Amino acid sequence: MKIAIPKERRAGETRVAASPDTVKKYVQMGFEVQVEAGAGSGASIADAVYAEAGASIAADAQAAFDADVVLKIARPTDDEIGLLREGAVLIAGLSALTNKDMVEKLAARKVTAFAMELVPRITRAQSMDILSSQANLAGYKAVLDGVHVFKRAVPMMMTAAGTVAPARFLILGAGVAGLQAIATAKRLGGVVYAFDVRPAVKEQVQSLGGKFVEVDPEATKDAETAGGYAKEMSEDYKAKQAAKIAEVLAKTDIAICTALIPGKPAPVLITEDMVKGMRPGSVIVDLAVEMGGNCPLSEFDQVVEKHGVTLVGHGNVPARLAVDASALFAKNLLNFITPLVDKENKTLAFNWDDEILKGSCVTRDGQVVHPALAG
Amino acid sequence: MKIAIPKERRAGETRVAASPDTVKKYVQMGFEVQVEAGAGSGASIADAVYAEAGASIAADAQAAFDADVVLKIARPTDDEIGLLREGAVLIAGLSALTNKDMVEKLAARKVTAFAMELVPRITRAQSMDILSSQANLAGYKAVLDGVHVFKRAVPMMMTAAGTVAPARFLILGAGVAGLQAIATAKRLGGVVYAFDVRPAVKEQVQSLGGKFVEVDPEATKDAETAGGYAKEMSEDYKAKQAAKIAEVLAKTDIAICTALIPGKPAPVLITEDMVKGMRPGSVIVDLAVEMGGNCPLSEFDQVVEKHGVTLVGHGNVPARLAVDASALFAKNLLNFITPLVDKENKTLAFNWDDEILKGSCVTRDGQVVHPALAG
Repeated sequence: MKIAIPKERRAGETRVAASPDTVKKYVQMGFEVQVEAGAGSGASIADAVYAEAGASIAADAQAAFDADVVLKIARPTDDEIGLLREGAVLIAGLSALTNKDMVEKLAARKVTAFAMELVPRITRAQSMDILSSQANLAGYKAVLDGVHVFKRAVPMMMTAAGTVAPARFLILGAGVAGLQAIATAKRLGGVVYAFDVRPAVKEQVQSLGGKFVEVDPEATKDAETAGGYAKEMSEDYKAKQAAKIAEVLAKTDIAICTALIPGKPAPVLITEDMVKGMRPGSVIVDLAVEMGGNCPLSEFDQVVEKHGVTLVGHGNVPARLAVDASALFAKNLLNFITPLVDKENKTLAFNWDDEILKGSCVTRDGQVVHPALAG
Repeated sequence: MKIAIPKERRAGETRVAASPDTVKKYVQMGFEVQVEAGAGSGASIADAVYAEAGASIAADAQAAFDADVVLKIARPTDDEIGLLREGAVLIAGLSALTNKDMVEKLAARKVTAFAMELVPRITRAQSMDILSSQANLAGYKAVLDGVHVFKRAVPMMMTAAGTVAPARFLILGAGVAGLQAIATAKRLGGVVYAFDVRPAVKEQVQSLGGKFVEVDPEATKDAETAGGYAKEMSEDYKAKQAAKIAEVLAKTDIAICTALIPGKPAPVLITEDMVKGMRPGSVIVDLAVEMGGNCPLSEFDQVVEKHGVTLVGHGNVPARLAVDASALFAKNLLNFITPLVDKENKTLAFNWDDEILKGSCVTRDGQVVHPALAG
């Protein structure tokens, strides 16, 4: 059985779906591994390093896609779907729920496709969770992207010429990205406030040294879904929330927006009026920009200045840390594949009753099979 | 007596020589203060904020330079020297020792010029020390500039998908900038090595959590000048030093170069061969680039990739933190001026026997008067 790792071709995608470590593991499992030439260049991994780990190097995409199992970071383009073998297995971040056309094309191509972003959030699947592994890095990098354009130092500095006050952060959304943002801003010496509709995260925020911004504890009792995500809130709550956020923002130097609602546009948490109320030289980093943004003034893949505030709207932030993001994504894929390996026949065997496979498989036998997509 | 703060016009100079705080102090001393329109824009200080502090706003450079005392960040251009009143006092960072032509023009204009970079390093003058106040911020920002282009996270991260190893730093030169670089890299969770020819700084490096890279303790007994700067070392020592640095660099992710020898080109500490020996994806930030660089591959005001290593060569790094850099520089100027104030006559009175004035005055009464510059 041949596992292939093509070079990612979408704009700005610097990551790669295998590391030298995971290549070694696949080879040890008895698989043939093939990496496209240059696939690791964005993550500083030379072809020779993959070769040393046991991979063969495919000269181009056509050769790279000619395999039983294809591992990718990002959803395939139409061209790439055309290069997949009929009956091949594709395991990747597919953004399947928002790309139904692509899913249908994969079905037509008779590909068995697994969407890694749909792996259920159960304990057994934690080590396969690309959303967490990438969000963690995004939260870290968001703080550094904010600090990069900030014209002041973050930590308090006591110097002979006077004291430099510490910078104040507001982290909106305390999920995986938000918690890592809190930790990173604290590490740099910032004073950190954090807001989330889910009161359950208050303790986590505080354990990282953040101050939890509370709106209305009574209204937020049921703000969390079974999957641990934030729910959408009532209009009354939203008005109170807006007033509270505006109050904190007026004293904030760097705001980091990480609030997402699965399958919906990102909630607007920072309005244009709130931006106007911020001090000149303040910064907003909007990690939700690809889903419309927590601030409507942020622009996808742009750094812009509006009302004296710098808005940072990088898309695909994990790709800005390509080395670590690739290593963890590759490990997520390895952890997904490992339980599927049929050691005797050196192939993959699927138990279709397994909730991980049921939750993540989107196409099989020429059909769209995922309940959220089929029919 | 009128004190003026013109807008800085040199390329990349975002700083401004007064803050709203220092303006208030000058006004309290009984002086008239005049700030050029837009002077604070690079440091996020609006004209209205200066006006509120008590300054009048001068419409253009011609009006702004028409004053008894002119405060500046950077040495004046020829045009600016032409705008100074004959007999005016100029207090600024003049880079006087490397700009003798400019000093002669200031003398011809009968300007009493003080070079803030020449203020002697004595206890009483610590609060006037622009080299320290700006180097401190440069050391901080150098680490963040390195981290910005680094494709990995700095801290160790233990995640469900595996552990991310901490990044390894090497700080070359443990002066003010180097020590702040060590502190910043440690704050971010890096593993930090530091090198300096002066064994006296070993304890300071260690107190910040850095590991001191030792070459030859015997050879470095006298490596420090009376002023606390590093001396130039012997050829034999340099060979040992090069071997040791090459060894550490091969395991370094981010190198920060801060080594300067006053009045001389920066010492070459990282050769091209050493760059070739670094791992792909490593980063070198060269704070010494304006003096030729500690690495000859770094390019002034450029970020370049050579042999798989990213070299960051920003000039004027303090200007990249314009708000804090301006606030501290302005405070240094205030601290320099305060002891000179003749409260009764509301003017400045100079005691030419004072070692601070003797050390920093470069022109007076139409003459070049500084011993290091005068004929």
